[in-house]
Amino acid sequence: MSDTWINNNRLTAQISFLAEIDKLKNVLRKTFIMDGSRLENTAEHSWNVALMAVVLMEHANDTSLDLNRVIRMLLLHDLVEIDAGDTFAYDTQGYLDKEERENAAARRLFGILPEDQRGEWMDLWREFEDGETYESKYAAALDRLHPVINNHYTGGASWQKNGIVRSQVLKRLAPVKEVSDTLWSFALEILQKSIDQGILLDDPIAEEV
Amino acid sequence: MSDTWINNNRLTAQISFLAEIDKLKNVLRKTFIMDGSRLENTAEHSWNVALMAVVLMEHANDTSLDLNRVIRMLLLHDLVEIDAGDTFAYDTQGYLDKEERENAAARRLFGILPEDQRGEWMDLWREFEDGETYESKYAAALDRLHPVINNHYTGGASWQKNGIVRSQVLKRLAPVKEVSDTLWSFALEILQKSIDQGILLDDPIAEEV
Ligand SMILES: [Ca+2]
Repeated sequence: MSDTWINNNRLTAQISFLAEIDKLKNVLRKTFIMDGSRLENTAEHSWNVALMAVVLMEHANDTSLDLNRVIRMLLLHDLVEIDAGDTFAYDTQGYLDKEERENAAARRLFGILPEDQRGEWMDLWREFEDGETYESKYAAALDRLHPVINNHYTGGASWQKNGIVRSQVLKRLAPVKEVSDTLWSFALEILQKSIDQGILLDDPIAEEV
Repeated sequence: MSDTWINNNRLTAQISFLAEIDKLKNVLRKTFIMDGSRLENTAEHSWNVALMAVVLMEHANDTSLDLNRVIRMLLLHDLVEIDAGDTFAYDTQGYLDKEERENAAARRLFGILPEDQRGEWMDLWREFEDGETYESKYAAALDRLHPVINNHYTGGASWQKNGIVRSQVLKRLAPVKEVSDTLWSFALEILQKSIDQGILLDDPIAEEV
């Protein structure tokens, strides 16, 4: 992939970057696509959450958010998994060096782009990771909600395979609570329904006197 | 998937729509992902072209275009394939009733959404299909360029399997010529290089006196 294209350095770098990010299609997540036939890959997931952001926008508590930035953030937020792999949401061990691995991946991947673009992409990715702006929180909310919906519709396939209980899912869903009352009610309902259907384990009761 | 969610008709319709569009992950295209290991699906393709639009934006002849509309158009442009299937670019038979099949698909799919959203999504899809605005032409250019790049990097896998020759590819690439001198030069070069490497067939010479 080290071709030079039409003697244009910028285009050459950009095509090389595009060839590189194709690899995201081979990064498998822990959740299944909705028909349960196979695991989802991260490229599909990125497409999915970007469209979710558009469809569910009206439910954000602050609908003055910049949806365009959210969409771009979601499209690129997981590119680092090409090098760093998908760290399962409930893998506490994997989370120890996740930040370090992903920072290195971002530097290498975005580093393929021409310098001005590198900065833009890195800034968007950092914004998502830092989660301080309302846009990044809304983006994170959808990123967290997506596997929960897919789990519900696949009979809890990934929850059961990995022995996940309600409190773990709730903890992951914290960004949803921050940005949308409606989506938070929805999240609580989908978890309760999943428990009622026996596809998600409730937490062991800590104190049963 | 006929659940009602938190007694909210709009959210219920939207979640039902999201469950439906998950099926795009099972629609296979005729092109391979870049490592040649398998066919690409249309959800991945949609993600890919949306990011291409961002990366290659500077090469549009008119850079005042509305990139945000392009991105949204590309994310949803192929949803109709859930019902209508992927019509191979060089399948003249399949193209005969393509429009009819895709119109019906758009009505059914976007019809799942609340009415105001239905209109918005339908308009964006129609804009892409009509190809009259600059944004839709730029979007189409990337949609056409994407399989060519993937073909080049997979040794012409899909071209060879389907006996495709240069003039057919050139014809498909017409929208590129319309929107970008740089990307058109790139397209011509990638085709020439593919022919030189023996991975794309040149046309038979019509008149050899
Ligand atoms: Ca397409």
